[in-house]
Amino acid sequence: MSKKFGFELIKTAHDSRARLGTITTKHGTIETPVFMPVGTQATVKTLTPEELKEHDTSIILSNTYHLFLRPGSKVIKNIGGLHKFMHWDGPILTDSGGFQIFSLNKIAKIKEEGVYFNSHINGSKQFLSPEISMEIQQDLGSDIAMVLDEPVSPLSSYEYTKKSNEMSLRWARRCKDSHHDENQVLFGIIQGGMFKDLRKQSLESLLEIGFDGFAIGGLSVGEPKDLMFELIEYLSPLLPKEKPRYVMGVGKPLDIIKGVLNGIDMFDCVIPTRYARNGTLFTSVGKVVIKNEKYTNDASKLDPNCLCYTCRHYSRAYLRHLFKAQEILSLRLNTIHNIFFYNSIMKKIREEIKKDSLLDFYERNVKAFSV
Amino acid sequence: MSKKFGFELIKTAHDSRARLGTITTKHGTIETPVFMPVGTQATVKTLTPEELKEHDTSIILSNTYHLFLRPGSKVIKNIGGLHKFMHWDGPILTDSGGFQIFSLNKIAKIKEEGVYFNSHINGSKQFLSPEISMEIQQDLGSDIAMVLDEPVSPLSSYEYTKKSNEMSLRWARRCKDSHHDENQVLFGIIQGGMFKDLRKQSLESLLEIGFDGFAIGGLSVGEPKDLMFELIEYLSPLLPKEKPRYVMGVGKPLDIIKGVLNGIDMFDCVIPTRYARNGTLFTSVGKVVIKNEKYTNDASKLDPNCLCYTCRHYSRAYLRHLFKAQEILSLRLNTIHNIFFYNSIMKKIREEIKKDSLLDFYERNVKAFSV
Repeated sequence: MSKKFGFELIKTAHDSRARLGTITTKHGTIETPVFMPVGTQATVKTLTPEELKEHDTSIILSNTYHLFLRPGSKVIKNIGGLHKFMHWDGPILTDSGGFQIFSLNKIAKIKEEGVYFNSHINGSKQFLSPEISMEIQQDLGSDIAMVLDEPVSPLSSYEYTKKSNEMSLRWARRCKDSHHDENQVLFGIIQGGMFKDLRKQSLESLLEIGFDGFAIGGLSVGEPKDLMFELIEYLSPLLPKEKPRYVMGVGKPLDIIKGVLNGIDMFDCVIPTRYARNGTLFTSVGKVVIKNEKYTNDASKLDPNCLCYTCRHYSRAYLRHLFKAQEILSLRLNTIHNIFFYNSIMKKIREEIKKDSLLDFYERNVKAFSV
Repeated sequence: MSKKFGFELIKTAHDSRARLGTITTKHGTIETPVFMPVGTQATVKTLTPEELKEHDTSIILSNTYHLFLRPGSKVIKNIGGLHKFMHWDGPILTDSGGFQIFSLNKIAKIKEEGVYFNSHINGSKQFLSPEISMEIQQDLGSDIAMVLDEPVSPLSSYEYTKKSNEMSLRWARRCKDSHHDENQVLFGIIQGGMFKDLRKQSLESLLEIGFDGFAIGGLSVGEPKDLMFELIEYLSPLLPKEKPRYVMGVGKPLDIIKGVLNGIDMFDCVIPTRYARNGTLFTSVGKVVIKNEKYTNDASKLDPNCLCYTCRHYSRAYLRHLFKAQEILSLRLNTIHNIFFYNSIMKKIREEIKKDSLLDFYERNVKAFSV
């Protein structure tokens, strides 16, 4: 583990597996459990870095796949790295590019050496390998890099999943071998589809290679929620206590709190930002679909219990008007609120773990989280 | 003139007709000459009120036509007026709705009683009269309201223009008669197309009715620029010195400074905001079309002499990337810069008038203004 990086486990709850911790990076400290807003193209859509900070964001995720294709990681490297490029001086986690290749390119070809695919922007032929993913992420200069893997569909057969898993582990080794940036740490990703023995095998191999943190990949991709939590519950006690744990692509508020109760420290998801742009807002009084006619003359604030910029200054009537009129400010104000709602949930979760009352809090508030 | 409103003429330049003044409204004081960014649908596209203020905006314009159709002026009135609705506590000028009806509805029917037109949003039949325009603008609670008029095409015949002009003057009288909001002042609009005698007649009639300020309408709508300035030059000495003067819909930086040299105090235009969204940026070193490939690796700031938020924190390379990637933050950062560029020009203009050197400044910098 790099000297610049550290995970401190402050506390584990008595009534659940929930953990309180801090992750230290060269660009600042993150209190966990944490939610990471997604800044796919070197911007968390619609927001400035100042707005993210003002609304309690401590780390963002950016997508290697997108930045590799546009503007290209060398462009960003030449400007001085991703932090400088996008004017965000807090921690950044970059994914490996794998997930996006497979979700945006139906005809991607996976070989032992890497993935051949066509750019979703202009159709150009592209190639990504473990070594190239490491080079890109080091060019970007993120604080946390992820290994390249093949995210296996939950519908894949045992046979296919096993084979893919073995290749992903060889890729993980190649990532580790080609990663040399001591300002950046590397997380392994546990794959293995819906099969516990393959998941366990994946974890054991990753532990053997050695990583600074462990993600559970290939979840929240359409499998039943019960199955997702069954796997998280199964893996959680097997994960090393002294390393951060990250479930990728999760999720809705309820999924996040359930993840935390199962010992997960880190989450990312496009839901708060994407829903915001579609006019769906998470509030302490339930989901608000802001285009609804009933808000036409509603002078009240979006969420009576919220202190975000949007809730401090605007009425539901104005938010509805902006959305209906397709004004860009609508997307901004909605995104600010949803991001702050997520970050506020994480803050509340950390407070409840401190007081050893998260499980109780969850049970009393299941409904509020089910937005 | 309302007690809440006042125009103070601080100085007239020695070398030109340029004037320095202040306009006092219930929502604050405006230094003139001033540029008013356009907030068509109760938002200056992409920006928050805080960003407008931080970048030296002292008054905005909002469009009666758009707010009348959506969300409706009664909605805004119920929320507490336009200032509260959009969270802008500075001065607001609203236009009368006339110009938009004619530019967005090719089949609008003008009768003595008012204009019949179809909504550009849903095709519904609508009617706007001088009395209704006053009611809407009073519902909105803007600081400065404009009379409803027919903006005549510069291609119209003398005969048509004369007839239209006479009707516009009857409408101006009806506006005055139905305007009762003492927190709001009413400006008259000089029409008369490209004909000096009709312009003079329009002005004289408006003076007789009595208004708190005078706009020159029907300019910057496709007529040759020379003709526009010939008319402004002609009208300027006829306008009362103690009232603010406003040329509607103007313009580019060069047009504005020429307007100021001819004694105009107020301007509005969608150019800085619209150009920004199209990626065309005004800078002290010329126009920048940010999508151009040559900016791909350009680590320099957009404008070396600019202190706006965008120029303080981002490179041309990042601005190009955001624009190419169609990110919303691109539209924001571009708009911030163009608005600040315009407001900075106005500030510079006011400083030069103070020093009695605007004409000289203009002659030395014609090229810089010709962006």
